Amino acid sequence: MTLSLVDVAKHSTNKSCWVIIQDKVYDVTDFLAEHPGGSKVILKYAGRDATQAYLPIHPPDALKTLDLSKHLGPLDSADAQQLHIAQQNRVKTKDELRVEEQYKKRPPLGRILSLADFESLAQLVLSHKAWAYYSSSADTTSANVENARAFSRFFFNPRVMRPVRDCSPATKILGFDSSLPLFVSGAALAKLGHPLGEANITRGAHKGGIIQMVSSNASLSFAEVAAAAEPGQTLFFQLYKHTDDSLAVKRVREIESLGYKAIFLTVDALTAGKRECDVRAPWVLEDMENGPAYHVEGGPADIADDGGTAGALVGADDQNMTWEKTIPWLRSITKLPLVIKGVQCLEDAVLAAEAGCDGILISNHGGRQLDYSMPPLETLYRIRKRRPDLFDKMEIYIDGGARRGTDVVKAICLGAKAVGMGRPFLYAQSCYGADGVAKAISILDSEIVKAMKFLGAAKIEDLVPEMVERVDWQAKL
Amino acid sequence: MTLSLVDVAKHSTNKSCWVIIQDKVYDVTDFLAEHPGGSKVILKYAGRDATQAYLPIHPPDALKTLDLSKHLGPLDSADAQQLHIAQQNRVKTKDELRVEEQYKKRPPLGRILSLADFESLAQLVLSHKAWAYYSSSADTTSANVENARAFSRFFFNPRVMRPVRDCSPATKILGFDSSLPLFVSGAALAKLGHPLGEANITRGAHKGGIIQMVSSNASLSFAEVAAAAEPGQTLFFQLYKHTDDSLAVKRVREIESLGYKAIFLTVDALTAGKRECDVRAPWVLEDMENGPAYHVEGGPADIADDGGTAGALVGADDQNMTWEKTIPWLRSITKLPLVIKGVQCLEDAVLAAEAGCDGILISNHGGRQLDYSMPPLETLYRIRKRRPDLFDKMEIYIDGGARRGTDVVKAICLGAKAVGMGRPFLYAQSCYGADGVAKAISILDSEIVKAMKFLGAAKIEDLVPEMVERVDWQAKL
Amino acid sequence: MTLSLVDVAKHSTNKSCWVIIQDKVYDVTDFLAEHPGGSKVILKYAGRDATQAYLPIHPPDALKTLDLSKHLGPLDSADAQQLHIAQQNRVKTKDELRVEEQYKKRPPLGRILSLADFESLAQLVLSHKAWAYYSSSADTTSANVENARAFSRFFFNPRVMRPVRDCSPATKILGFDSSLPLFVSGAALAKLGHPLGEANITRGAHKGGIIQMVSSNASLSFAEVAAAAEPGQTLFFQLYKHTDDSLAVKRVREIESLGYKAIFLTVDALTAGKRECDVRAPWVLEDMENGPAYHVEGGPADIADDGGTAGALVGADDQNMTWEKTIPWLRSITKLPLVIKGVQCLEDAVLAAEAGCDGILISNHGGRQLDYSMPPLETLYRIRKRRPDLFDKMEIYIDGGARRGTDVVKAICLGAKAVGMGRPFLYAQSCYGADGVAKAISILDSEIVKAMKFLGAAKIEDLVPEMVERVDWQAKL
Amino acid sequence: MTLSLVDVAKHSTNKSCWVIIQDKVYDVTDFLAEHPGGSKVILKYAGRDATQAYLPIHPPDALKTLDLSKHLGPLDSADAQQLHIAQQNRVKTKDELRVEEQYKKRPPLGRILSLADFESLAQLVLSHKAWAYYSSSADTTSANVENARAFSRFFFNPRVMRPVRDCSPATKILGFDSSLPLFVSGAALAKLGHPLGEANITRGAHKGGIIQMVSSNASLSFAEVAAAAEPGQTLFFQLYKHTDDSLAVKRVREIESLGYKAIFLTVDALTAGKRECDVRAPWVLEDMENGPAYHVEGGPADIADDGGTAGALVGADDQNMTWEKTIPWLRSITKLPLVIKGVQCLEDAVLAAEAGCDGILISNHGGRQLDYSMPPLETLYRIRKRRPDLFDKMEIYIDGGARRGTDVVKAICLGAKAVGMGRPFLYAQSCYGADGVAKAISILDSEIVKAMKFLGAAKIEDLVPEMVERVDWQAKL
Repeated sequence: MTLSLVDVAKHSTNKSCWVIIQDKVYDVTDFLAEHPGGSKVILKYAGRDATQAYLPIHPPDALKTLDLSKHLGPLDSADAQQLHIAQQNRVKTKDELRVEEQYKKRPPLGRILSLADFESLAQLVLSHKAWAYYSSSADTTSANVENARAFSRFFFNPRVMRPVRDCSPATKILGFDSSLPLFVSGAALAKLGHPLGEANITRGAHKGGIIQMVSSNASLSFAEVAAAAEPGQTLFFQLYKHTDDSLAVKRVREIESLGYKAIFLTVDALTAGKRECDVRAPWVLEDMENGPAYHVEGGPADIADDGGTAGALVGADDQNMTWEKTIPWLRSITKLPLVIKGVQCLEDAVLAAEAGCDGILISNHGGRQLDYSMPPLETLYRIRKRRPDLFDKMEIYIDGGARRGTDVVKAICLGAKAVGMGRPFLYAQSCYGADGVAKAISILDSEIVKAMKFLGAAKIEDLVPEMVERVDWQAKL
Repeated sequence: MTLSLVDVAKHSTNKSCWVIIQDKVYDVTDFLAEHPGGSKVILKYAGRDATQAYLPIHPPDALKTLDLSKHLGPLDSADAQQLHIAQQNRVKTKDELRVEEQYKKRPPLGRILSLADFESLAQLVLSHKAWAYYSSSADTTSANVENARAFSRFFFNPRVMRPVRDCSPATKILGFDSSLPLFVSGAALAKLGHPLGEANITRGAHKGGIIQMVSSNASLSFAEVAAAAEPGQTLFFQLYKHTDDSLAVKRVREIESLGYKAIFLTVDALTAGKRECDVRAPWVLEDMENGPAYHVEGGPADIADDGGTAGALVGADDQNMTWEKTIPWLRSITKLPLVIKGVQCLEDAVLAAEAGCDGILISNHGGRQLDYSMPPLETLYRIRKRRPDLFDKMEIYIDGGARRGTDVVKAICLGAKAVGMGRPFLYAQSCYGADGVAKAISILDSEIVKAMKFLGAAKIEDLVPEMVERVDWQAKL
Repeated sequence: MTLSLVDVAKHSTNKSCWVIIQDKVYDVTDFLAEHPGGSKVILKYAGRDATQAYLPIHPPDALKTLDLSKHLGPLDSADAQQLHIAQQNRVKTKDELRVEEQYKKRPPLGRILSLADFESLAQLVLSHKAWAYYSSSADTTSANVENARAFSRFFFNPRVMRPVRDCSPATKILGFDSSLPLFVSGAALAKLGHPLGEANITRGAHKGGIIQMVSSNASLSFAEVAAAAEPGQTLFFQLYKHTDDSLAVKRVREIESLGYKAIFLTVDALTAGKRECDVRAPWVLEDMENGPAYHVEGGPADIADDGGTAGALVGADDQNMTWEKTIPWLRSITKLPLVIKGVQCLEDAVLAAEAGCDGILISNHGGRQLDYSMPPLETLYRIRKRRPDLFDKMEIYIDGGARRGTDVVKAICLGAKAVGMGRPFLYAQSCYGADGVAKAISILDSEIVKAMKFLGAAKIEDLVPEMVERVDWQAKL
Repeated sequence: MTLSLVDVAKHSTNKSCWVIIQDKVYDVTDFLAEHPGGSKVILKYAGRDATQAYLPIHPPDALKTLDLSKHLGPLDSADAQQLHIAQQNRVKTKDELRVEEQYKKRPPLGRILSLADFESLAQLVLSHKAWAYYSSSADTTSANVENARAFSRFFFNPRVMRPVRDCSPATKILGFDSSLPLFVSGAALAKLGHPLGEANITRGAHKGGIIQMVSSNASLSFAEVAAAAEPGQTLFFQLYKHTDDSLAVKRVREIESLGYKAIFLTVDALTAGKRECDVRAPWVLEDMENGPAYHVEGGPADIADDGGTAGALVGADDQNMTWEKTIPWLRSITKLPLVIKGVQCLEDAVLAAEAGCDGILISNHGGRQLDYSMPPLETLYRIRKRRPDLFDKMEIYIDGGARRGTDVVKAICLGAKAVGMGRPFLYAQSCYGADGVAKAISILDSEIVKAMKFLGAAKIEDLVPEMVERVDWQAKL
């Protein structure tokens, strides 16, 4: 049985809400209250086609969670055809036109010299919505800004007259080979920036010889990402644990069977950070189309509490995890190495070691959650100063703010096993797909090797704490 | 007996000065010298109607202090009518037109995401005079700026893996329930920003479940504010003690009978701060109307010493209060809890505790009095470091500079019982009345709860000093 | 015998150089080599009238040092008349026209609220040359900028609940009454800014009840300044000691007989600082008249070493003074109190005390001499921390960078007896003559009294070191 | 036998690559792979004249290293004539026209007051390529910027009342006379800025009485530089040691025979720094000519790894030097004093002293190599604090960031024997040739003498550590 556009249009309220996604009709009335992103954003499309809004921010299997009885069936094919034509013929928004124009004018990839070049270009070629989601951070944006600035308080004491002609930055992460002390940190919704999404990162990471950590909130399914990997390529999995343990077990089983090699349990994103730039994005776009002046009709509007794109992603996550309960439980269901992503202070690093974790990723989620959370490099430095023994008990990584080979090297000198980067690879793939990701890694490779040679270090183990000094001034950026 | 405009016009000098306020005539000749704001501002209206200038900056009962013999009687009704028509027909000033235009263009309240949004909007919709009065601060404005910047030197050491799904920010202030560790700090002249004045704040505070401290310099009478409160709603009173003890007693009796629940004795505003932006406001307006170029006629003008709006408010306040004399005296006349508002250093915090006060509000009056006074958060930090025992002896609050939920949480971690905010609520009510105030509280509620969850704190008591660290750099704002 | 313009014009080279000053002819050929400002600036006027260039930067008795045989006699009166007419009819420069225009547009003095207002206005109403001379400082200007910024690292810990209704800022300096802990620091060439020159400051200082220190490089004679003083008004003298002791003795005798009450021996200006803005002033003016584009004719020009206005003033000063020799010698020739102006470190403060000086003025000459010399407030702070006993052995003053009442109060809290200000009074008199100076003092008086009341200090002695704290951040200016 | 343009044009690929340089033909096919600057830049000129690109960045004897069999012989004279005419008639680029225009408009040299003036002017009169090469520094440019900013954290504690009329800044460096505690640090490719290249610096240094250190990468031959020196003028040599010891020996023999007086062994430039501005220069020029908009043809371009001008210079340098091997070897082949250029931390300073070096030059290569390397002044300060004995064991110099006489004096106070400067002299010679260099030295002389007098120092030995203080704030630049 097929349904027509007219049928669907009759269900356009919160009493009965149908939507069309990729030519199929779904009854989402009961789901409205559960939608992690709130009901409002769905009701905008009630009774009509939601495909364009849905696709870039949901993995393909997202609809699986909807009871089969709500899968109402395919759209009438003539009506589907009509939708496709309308989509093709529709007037493009100013933002879409801007993006098309800018994308055509991209420079040759060979002219990209640094991750900053990718970021500047990404701001031009990304849709406003994608840029807002990728670049935004919490509240005043201080946590994000300070993540990066922290690096500028650490200077090098380079050693000279040491043989460095044969210099190798290769290392191992959880026992897996990596060409660099660097990995791709999990980052959601790559399809917002490029139609191939996370697969671009997978392919680029392979070219560059580094490991990708895949987010639970990837816009491809975990199977699709795994399929993009070459044989033998290492993938890690960033787990957002569902409140429902059984669903979490199911997910772990799935990624185990797909060959993911380690679990990074996310503990720094229990609820959505307040990313105002992201929340504001739809209004900015609306004003861009219609002009900025409008009236407050009928007095002040209702108080909306729209969590932005982020709100949609973490709504079902477990906010009651504990060291005592969650770690043994995870150990009991999987043999994969376990890393805690989101440790943010010395005390929790100690607890993680005591809990027998294989590693911790010091991270404040790129400054997207708690504003004024301590920059990860500073936390790393505190561990180095006060509990250097922890570096022998587990692997310690950081992410957040690193943008240069020297940044990576500073963290390695202080004891980090590797440094994660998220946004830079999103920007690189948005600009040039997999080639962009490979180029980003190649830039970092060159920067890291140069830095090592200038420091008198021929291999990763030669990078020692004495080579960096935390200074009492702040470099002028 | 009624008086005519012609009668009044004959009394237009400092020898005999009559003014009309709301269709009544007053002889203020003898009062000129006593007027806290100076005689000049009254003489500008000598012999004519002063209603528009008088209303927004005086509470309705201000004329009570004028001897009844000086209440000369009503204006002739035809003349009053003539005044009203003239007022309606008068050419609006450029500033009034600007405000009307901007007010119409306010965004829907739902688009306000932060207190900063309210502030930006307030600068647009407020009259220049109101903005100058609300936003101005002393001398170089450093005290005000640094109040806020102080927060940016305190970073969080968040704890993870703690159950926070059920998170409550509720607390008690002087034993009274508050939905948040937050209260409205006393701020004068709300009517400058909105015709309903302080009542907007009262109603918004009720919706948000927080306590309002009402200023002695409110532009509504204390009874009017109390009348705006819902049954059971808690109001505190910010007392500016009059030099004349008997007048002070009278005021205390009045607010007791109105049901105010505590007294915040103001000790940081004995004389008017030098708020240059406020003093300059009338000249700016004059230049705005007439163009900025003018000549110095007949050589340099007299040296004027106009204290601005602030000067008018504190002229009669007691500058000779002491711990030994004033506290016991206050205790002897009232059973209400007593908090000293304006303590600014550790030594005075100790004295307040020794004097048996119920609490102190560390405040430099929003940076409006002494430039370069220590930011309240820094003073709180010094007490935490050197005399943590004081937190057990009395309740300690701070106000000044807090604009985000994270700011509030930082102060609570350091030991504050609650944080006061003044200007933000003035801005919110100026933009949207009581709804604006409620929205501001709702924003802070959301920010505070998010911050608590990210810190691993499920209740206020979980916020501990170890969670904040004063860093040796300054976040880039 | 009179001389004609034609006669004079024959002597226009460095072999024979005559100039006309105020209708008198002088042979300055032999003086060329001795001129403190270099020969070049004189040769520009060789064979013609130099009056306009000469007057604003020389005291009236400067020509006394020229041997009488070189006073060639008066100019022919018809020729003198011709010069006057030419001067009156000459085309005004763009800079002169700018100054006239701006001077007319000055605001009423009543609208000046702070010393910063005077400074902004001075930049508009001063000739470029005067502004360059007054405002310029050494090399990168860091010393000058940091003098002021130093104050922004000192915050107050105010005391409350102290009786301050009767608050007096009066004090004594070297035993002489002063209405404020403030004096006019010696500053040269007031006539560059206003035709009445230093006399404006003298009259304004009297109105404000503070003491003026008169510079050896005043553009009025010391007698003229003394004549502008009221009976009983205190003047101090800033001595630039001549290399020739006998000339120095002569000068001391002169100012003793004129009633000056103390000697401030200048030791921080042995040679001219490199004030690039001042050196560049004539070129800026030339380009302003002729347009900025010009060619290097015949290859690069000679390497000039023009010391600017400053170079002209200190050429003959003694560069070989010592504690052992100079202090006893000065004591032997005068009974006046002796203060060393220009002490810049703790060690020299100790030596001054040991040498029995009555006081020291910690000063880096307004940052006009040695770039990166320690800000005086910082030096004062170091003395307070390490040798507080010195404050009991002599009076200690500072100048440089203070612009607000709070600045003055900070220094007094740290132990300074008084604070000197130079440029602010030059700017004030340039804008409004003596009235401007009086207004500047009145502003400072009001600011100082407010600060004292807010600090809980009813008299100067109540200002104690505990009230200021050097913080580890820098206020944002 | 001569070759024609047609003959040459047949060899325009990487299989067979001929180029014309100054009317001679060379077969560089086999050399392509060895070219330190990469093959790409040569292939751009394959089969045609490369003279204009070759000359400014290669010393005249660079072609000596090409096997004689590859020197194919002279170009046919008519064809050579044709090339010359074509070169003369060719359309000038926008950049060339800009440079010509700006060069004509240079101010007279007498108006240059500071090294900053030279730098500002150099940016105008230099080709974009030259400016990019001279001014560029590594990665984020922080190392370069911080080199200069470091000086702004050191303030003076000047001494007064000391005889300074006779003040001399003369000193000795490695026993050789220098009029100032200052020398020219080696800097490559002076011909990029001025046709006379390094000889300008040699002549200017002689006029100013200071010593020039000549770079291995000079654009004149070492013999040409030596020939520009006056009899008795001291030259030092900055050695980039070739990987092949025998070539290194040959170079040492050559400069010994030319009369160079010391060897500064470069250890901070083993590989090219990442100077993005320099790498980007050709693209900027291309866009300048053709407009900035272009398309990515056929998908993203190849990933280029162009090391910029710098890459071409250090490709053959020895990356395996060690204290144990290299120092004794150098000592065994020459009696010249030996200084290690590029020491960057205390530990290596100790090793240099233990290895018996005559001196070290603390340098991070002007911030052009490792970003965030410690500023040399800070390293000097650390040696002064922790190992002051090292100053007695060898001479210690610094370079990087010094731009003022006060900068030099600060380093001397801390124990440096002399301060090197590189870029400032390149800028000075680019603007005005040898006269510019002499003027730069004269400016520094004047600034140094003034600073010494203001500090109370009559000779270099009077400059002591107590005169400088590292402050905990940063001057506002």
